[in-house]
Amino acid sequence: MTNPLIDDRLVDFLVYDVHDAEGLARFPEFESHGRDTFDLFLASARRLARERFFPTYRAMDTEPPIFDGKRITTHPELPGLYRALVELGCVTATRPVESDGQGLPRLIYSIGSAYLMAGNLGAYCYAGLTAGAAHLIEAFGTEELDRLYRQPMIEGRFTGTMALTEPQAGSSLGDVTTRATPVGDGTYRIRGSKIFISGGDHTVTENVVHLLLARIEGAPSGTRGISLFVVPNRRYEGDALVDNDVTVAGMIHKIGWKALPSLALEFGDSGDCHGFLVGEANQGLKHMFQMMNDARLMVGMNGAATASVAYHEARLYAQVRTQGRRGRSDGPASPIIEHPDVRRMLLRQKAIVEGAFSLLAETARRADDAEFGPEAERDSARLLVDLLTPLAKTFPAEWGFESNALAVQIHGGYGYSSEYLPEAFMRDQKLNTIHEGTTGIQALDLLGRKVMAQGGRALQVLGAEMGKTSARARKAGIDANDCDAFDVAVQSVGALTLELAKRGTSGDPDGMMAHATDYLSLVAILVTSWQWLKMRERATLRTGEADATFVSGLHAAGRYWLRTELPKIPALVELCRSSEDSYLTIDAASF
Amino acid sequence: MTNPLIDDRLVDFLVYDVHDAEGLARFPEFESHGRDTFDLFLASARRLARERFFPTYRAMDTEPPIFDGKRITTHPELPGLYRALVELGCVTATRPVESDGQGLPRLIYSIGSAYLMAGNLGAYCYAGLTAGAAHLIEAFGTEELDRLYRQPMIEGRFTGTMALTEPQAGSSLGDVTTRATPVGDGTYRIRGSKIFISGGDHTVTENVVHLLLARIEGAPSGTRGISLFVVPNRRYEGDALVDNDVTVAGMIHKIGWKALPSLALEFGDSGDCHGFLVGEANQGLKHMFQMMNDARLMVGMNGAATASVAYHEARLYAQVRTQGRRGRSDGPASPIIEHPDVRRMLLRQKAIVEGAFSLLAETARRADDAEFGPEAERDSARLLVDLLTPLAKTFPAEWGFESNALAVQIHGGYGYSSEYLPEAFMRDQKLNTIHEGTTGIQALDLLGRKVMAQGGRALQVLGAEMGKTSARARKAGIDANDCDAFDVAVQSVGALTLELAKRGTSGDPDGMMAHATDYLSLVAILVTSWQWLKMRERATLRTGEADATFVSGLHAAGRYWLRTELPKIPALVELCRSSEDSYLTIDAASF
Repeated sequence: MTNPLIDDRLVDFLVYDVHDAEGLARFPEFESHGRDTFDLFLASARRLARERFFPTYRAMDTEPPIFDGKRITTHPELPGLYRALVELGCVTATRPVESDGQGLPRLIYSIGSAYLMAGNLGAYCYAGLTAGAAHLIEAFGTEELDRLYRQPMIEGRFTGTMALTEPQAGSSLGDVTTRATPVGDGTYRIRGSKIFISGGDHTVTENVVHLLLARIEGAPSGTRGISLFVVPNRRYEGDALVDNDVTVAGMIHKIGWKALPSLALEFGDSGDCHGFLVGEANQGLKHMFQMMNDARLMVGMNGAATASVAYHEARLYAQVRTQGRRGRSDGPASPIIEHPDVRRMLLRQKAIVEGAFSLLAETARRADDAEFGPEAERDSARLLVDLLTPLAKTFPAEWGFESNALAVQIHGGYGYSSEYLPEAFMRDQKLNTIHEGTTGIQALDLLGRKVMAQGGRALQVLGAEMGKTSARARKAGIDANDCDAFDVAVQSVGALTLELAKRGTSGDPDGMMAHATDYLSLVAILVTSWQWLKMRERATLRTGEADATFVSGLHAAGRYWLRTELPKIPALVELCRSSEDSYLTIDAASF
Repeated sequence: MTNPLIDDRLVDFLVYDVHDAEGLARFPEFESHGRDTFDLFLASARRLARERFFPTYRAMDTEPPIFDGKRITTHPELPGLYRALVELGCVTATRPVESDGQGLPRLIYSIGSAYLMAGNLGAYCYAGLTAGAAHLIEAFGTEELDRLYRQPMIEGRFTGTMALTEPQAGSSLGDVTTRATPVGDGTYRIRGSKIFISGGDHTVTENVVHLLLARIEGAPSGTRGISLFVVPNRRYEGDALVDNDVTVAGMIHKIGWKALPSLALEFGDSGDCHGFLVGEANQGLKHMFQMMNDARLMVGMNGAATASVAYHEARLYAQVRTQGRRGRSDGPASPIIEHPDVRRMLLRQKAIVEGAFSLLAETARRADDAEFGPEAERDSARLLVDLLTPLAKTFPAEWGFESNALAVQIHGGYGYSSEYLPEAFMRDQKLNTIHEGTTGIQALDLLGRKVMAQGGRALQVLGAEMGKTSARARKAGIDANDCDAFDVAVQSVGALTLELAKRGTSGDPDGMMAHATDYLSLVAILVTSWQWLKMRERATLRTGEADATFVSGLHAAGRYWLRTELPKIPALVELCRSSEDSYLTIDAASF
């Protein structure tokens, strides 16, 4: 049995039964689409992932890029894989046709791309980064930038990066010091150091285009003085591509994602690095943040995909590896999938992986609604997307890491060896709690901004959606106890949020935010429970014989999640409400 | 600031204030000892760890052993480090003087050895394995085996291994198939394959002695037909060491512990592998299990030590790495130790690390009591050791892994790079949930055997000890709420255990054991909370100015743990009591 990366039955169920992709085809934007074109894309993505991406994963993990002191040489299989991604349309899949895209709903593209991430995460992400960079130029760049730098991205000749982080400015982008000096012809000379630039140099395509944050001379300090630039490794002079004074200062020895180099870059060491302003001066961070939701959701999908491929690896191993005897004292050894604790670990992985996919699909579907849905529903859809984004980024990353560790554990001693894949997936996963905003940053965003926006309207919208799900689940005959427990949890999270908001507005913001990460945890449990209840309700409609095994698996995982995770919420609610302030008040010297 | 590996103030506090090492010096066995000799050993261990072990850690992680197809070549620094371990007395430290030991209490030795584990885990473990092997020969071997194979171990010329696992027999040792054929002179010819044999071949010393499980021809099947043998890589023929037909079939590419090779070995490929019976025929597993507690506690200490070195790395990094501003909008950036979520992650690590050390110290102290304490107290001390062992093995491994992941997280993007140490510690830690009995196996041991032994007497003894701690804590003025919460948790775990036992004896063993791993989790929370209450109570006696920072750190970590972890117990209790059987009943095909 080969690893399917993601269960096709699950994808079909999530896309059509749970998140109603066919409903999307009724939006004018998607009128040329329907189940046939969606299925075609999904089938192409999974075939590419299985036939070409997954088989090259191990080689790229063990043969990372080489830095010869000047440039980076990446794995020789990558150019072919990248061409296939471009041909599949990954750079502009969700852009409208008039923007050279396929006009695919995010719901379809994000799940399709998950196969590619699960197959070879680092290789896929060249396309993910390029899509983000191209979209920034499309949204804010001049026609000339579009022609010179975005078109070659779409054609697969250039790739893109996000060049934000500097050695002293990671989570705190207001501290960016890279300078942009106007030279009078509308262009700028860039000088500064960036670090952790994924795909900043490589031998995959002929050029790299950085979407770079820098400070125009004389700009205000902090986040209000940051501008966005296109800075290519090689720039056009007339029709010729010439060196643009971007040098590789070093390669980070990452512990995963090894197909994709992470670099320290120097811009303008020789004073000849040309940069081209994108959008308005001093609005760079704002422009960048317009893409941030997409980037964060992509990270969430990375997390779900990485947990999924490991889950299937563990599942297949547990079916063939024998050890001990379950319920007998002799005879042949049992496959370990018969042992209760192995089953526990597998079901927990399944619940995490499938809950994560459903949460990401929900968010993608709402993003489609927000952009292309009926006018009257767009605002609440946008609120939901904004609220769900930190959760859909963090749940797959944090719980996914737990899930990846369980896949290692199921492999026992073999799991501790690099001859088996799960340890590599575990390494890949760890980045997802760190990049595109750490878990701590996501928690601040959720509690400090998202649930507080518009007087808490986002949470009201979410609460209403959850209420609908619960009512439908009851009607469909899902255990009343599970529905009751869910409703109680929804109520308690609502009450907690109100209480914390009051604490914040009555002069105790530290008390409000003290347990932000615990708050994120409990809301993550709530929204994944919501997804499981929704999946269980939808699963009752699949009554065919052929679906029986799949459906009973959904019910088992959903029951497990609701009954194991929802009961954790009250203690977390109490913690958030409490005056437990140990880590706020401890003297730094007492650590 | 260099990494201290373990906080010396903590060690002093645990050894003398919390676990009363000076009380041990009143036992006849330890009459030659006292605070001076204990401190001397601890000082020697920490000096060796800091000056020679930690500085070589990185090199050994990046330059793993080499297998040339015949033998293994280990790191060139290892022979010197190993000699230093032998000189420190690590092979026989806790053996009595008449068994060539130093007669050190386990309490002292185990904490001292933790510095060495924290400094360079793989390098230390040559000594740990050799100590276990030597002790087996001492306990069950003939005088000749002692002279020929144990004495050279003590002198540092040979090392030892535990050769149990076979490709088809890991957790299920009853499936061992390695055969031992008697040849009439009292010796045996061994033939079979072993795998995951740590230190099975190397260039550290001149010979390796395997304590190997095999089946004598005609022995009963299963665990009752397994015998224990000494099988050296090179055997004595007269005074000469000759090849004993043990070949290296392969080296496992482990993801951590790289100083110590893990090997697949073939015994008797040419029919000339001599084995020497240790103890009684068919009693091999029983003999081995007599050492198993020690081995499991060593793994627990590996876990605590690995979490400790990572915690200190994160603490030191958080003091110097600046990012953002806490409570200000401009001025210089703040050290990240000022940010609440970083403080949360640090305090959680501190609580896990120090709670783990105290739990291990408690268990070691009880093991000293059980072996050398007043006769009347030995039985209950032994019960406590047996009960605490699966917890003291698992808590540092599982919670330690979480703690190690937090150390990576605090390092942000840098933590994802192998240029920083935390990722290596995280890799090292993962083995501890797998070897010497996986977490699932420990859970079965705890609930199925340990708490059920002698009609639940062990848990009664533990409950009484916990009651004493709580009463003392109240008297010392520790917050009554924390003491109340602890008492309630003790009661609820007792009631749960009784209920599960009844379920087991009334014909529902599956229902009893269904949530064994959750049971282990909740008892782990309880016993670490016990330790934190004990530490807080003892900390009130340290009133000196010089101790103020240290003491307030203990109170902060203890408060954090009691208030964050104890509230998790009720949901886990309910889960164990519930009929939630999702993973027991799911069809294997539904995963």
